Amino acid sequence: MFTTTILVRFGDLDAAGIAYYPNLVNFLHEAFEDFFAGHVGRTYPEVFGAGLASPTVKVEMEFLSPVRYGDRVLIAVVVERIGRTSVEVRYAGSVLGRPVFRARNTMVIVDMKTFRPTPIPDWLRERFAAAMEPKAAPPPA
Amino acid sequence: MFTTTILVRFGDLDAAGIAYYPNLVNFLHEAFEDFFAGHVGRTYPEVFGAGLASPTVKVEMEFLSPVRYGDRVLIAVVVERIGRTSVEVRYAGSVLGRPVFRARNTMVIVDMKTFRPTPIPDWLRERFAAAMEPKAAPPPA
Amino acid sequence: MFTTTILVRFGDLDAAGIAYYPNLVNFLHEAFEDFFAGHVGRTYPEVFGAGLASPTVKVEMEFLSPVRYGDRVLIAVVVERIGRTSVEVRYAGSVLGRPVFRARNTMVIVDMKTFRPTPIPDWLRERFAAAMEPKAAPPPA
Amino acid sequence: MFTTTILVRFGDLDAAGIAYYPNLVNFLHEAFEDFFAGHVGRTYPEVFGAGLASPTVKVEMEFLSPVRYGDRVLIAVVVERIGRTSVEVRYAGSVLGRPVFRARNTMVIVDMKTFRPTPIPDWLRERFAAAMEPKAAPPPA
Repeated sequence: MFTTTILVRFGDLDAAGIAYYPNLVNFLHEAFEDFFAGHVGRTYPEVFGAGLASPTVKVEMEFLSPVRYGDRVLIAVVVERIGRTSVEVRYAGSVLGRPVFRARNTMVIVDMKTFRPTPIPDWLRERFAAAMEPKAAPPPA
Repeated sequence: MFTTTILVRFGDLDAAGIAYYPNLVNFLHEAFEDFFAGHVGRTYPEVFGAGLASPTVKVEMEFLSPVRYGDRVLIAVVVERIGRTSVEVRYAGSVLGRPVFRARNTMVIVDMKTFRPTPIPDWLRERFAAAMEPKAAPPPA
Repeated sequence: MFTTTILVRFGDLDAAGIAYYPNLVNFLHEAFEDFFAGHVGRTYPEVFGAGLASPTVKVEMEFLSPVRYGDRVLIAVVVERIGRTSVEVRYAGSVLGRPVFRARNTMVIVDMKTFRPTPIPDWLRERFAAAMEPKAAPPPA
Repeated sequence: MFTTTILVRFGDLDAAGIAYYPNLVNFLHEAFEDFFAGHVGRTYPEVFGAGLASPTVKVEMEFLSPVRYGDRVLIAVVVERIGRTSVEVRYAGSVLGRPVFRARNTMVIVDMKTFRPTPIPDWLRERFAAAMEPKAAPPPA
């Protein structure tokens, strides 16, 4: 399972002194970028520069516990479902073992020339597949 | 039904030239602030200054169509459910009649002194209730 | 003199409960966008869409007094100097008459196809000129 | 001289595909936070939590070359001047040796209880002093 760590910056905080939740939504994108660099093997800037993008069509996110200034949020990234042109990714954030958020994000892979969905290229599909959780083994017969 | 309009600014855009989705999540908060000023009758800054806040515990958002620079996003705000200390709000965004997003946000009302949930005060509960959609009339007997 | 008003949103605040200063720098861009809509007569999205941009090459900004949640910042926009491919703009922000910031921003007009400086088109130069402060009249002879 | 590196994220970009300049102003604050962790020896969250803050009263920033997606911006942080309650810090950003910005930021140290300037504590003054550039030696007599 791919994990990355994102540091909570002053600019992420709100007037209550905790991370403002749209900024935590942005953490999901940052974790996805780190997933490209650390797991896919091509950076997101490189893939984006080559003309592929992955706009989000749906996000669900639950905030379980406040995220504070200076926290290092460990984010686990798991691919949940791979379609022809879309991918669903699950994120779980925690701080020192305390769960702080969980989220699910559906993205469509688009060709930046047309901004229309395009089949996920094989090299990317293979890396997404490698980030899925192993299926539970079937019960013995 | 309360509605407000938010202008898409240069700072809301991403490198694909459309609104970056965490910034559209921020639009939900801005619409909620406008809902306080325009429907509740006390501004959010005033309520926040008096010691109440409404951290989001869950957000779900679907992006239906790209939001572009200069778009004026009309956002409808409907209260869906009112609990003892929480409220669920539904948002629907459109640009010139074209739906661009829909979202649902669950917030908990907290007392800023303790940062713990507190019962929704009556004056606020009454205004939330006034923003619920009328129930469909029962079918005639 | 062109003026516009920008409302301070929850998302603009920092953990000290005042506007985070990079967000006030963003207010300068928003005021410049309003200046296009309200003074230049073509919106910035329209001009940007037609292939002109105005990246900032230099900004200086002084923060004179805290900007708080819910403040409506009145921003005056004055063109200070017009070069062949660049323009210098001065901003003064105030809240209920209390000065909160002043700033000066130098932008270069670039052609988005090449991202290189391009002479300011006449229609824009004329509008920039109309936003300069009148020179003091020379003393009578 | 203290240096830190900040990665340019998707959320930092504008519609021209380069870092939006208010986000680069935010990089200055992030570099200052890293300076606390890496040079001062107490993290900024810790110092802020203990009741000191450093609001910016003046910033000047020049943008020398576009900052692109995926760039790792090396930022050098040098203390320029230490007053009784204020400090002036100089920043120089570069990408692979190419200068991309230089900036100067004047901050006032405030006591968060009163939000008024307070003398820089000795432990912090000593660390600021250690981050000044060595004066050129006087020429031999």
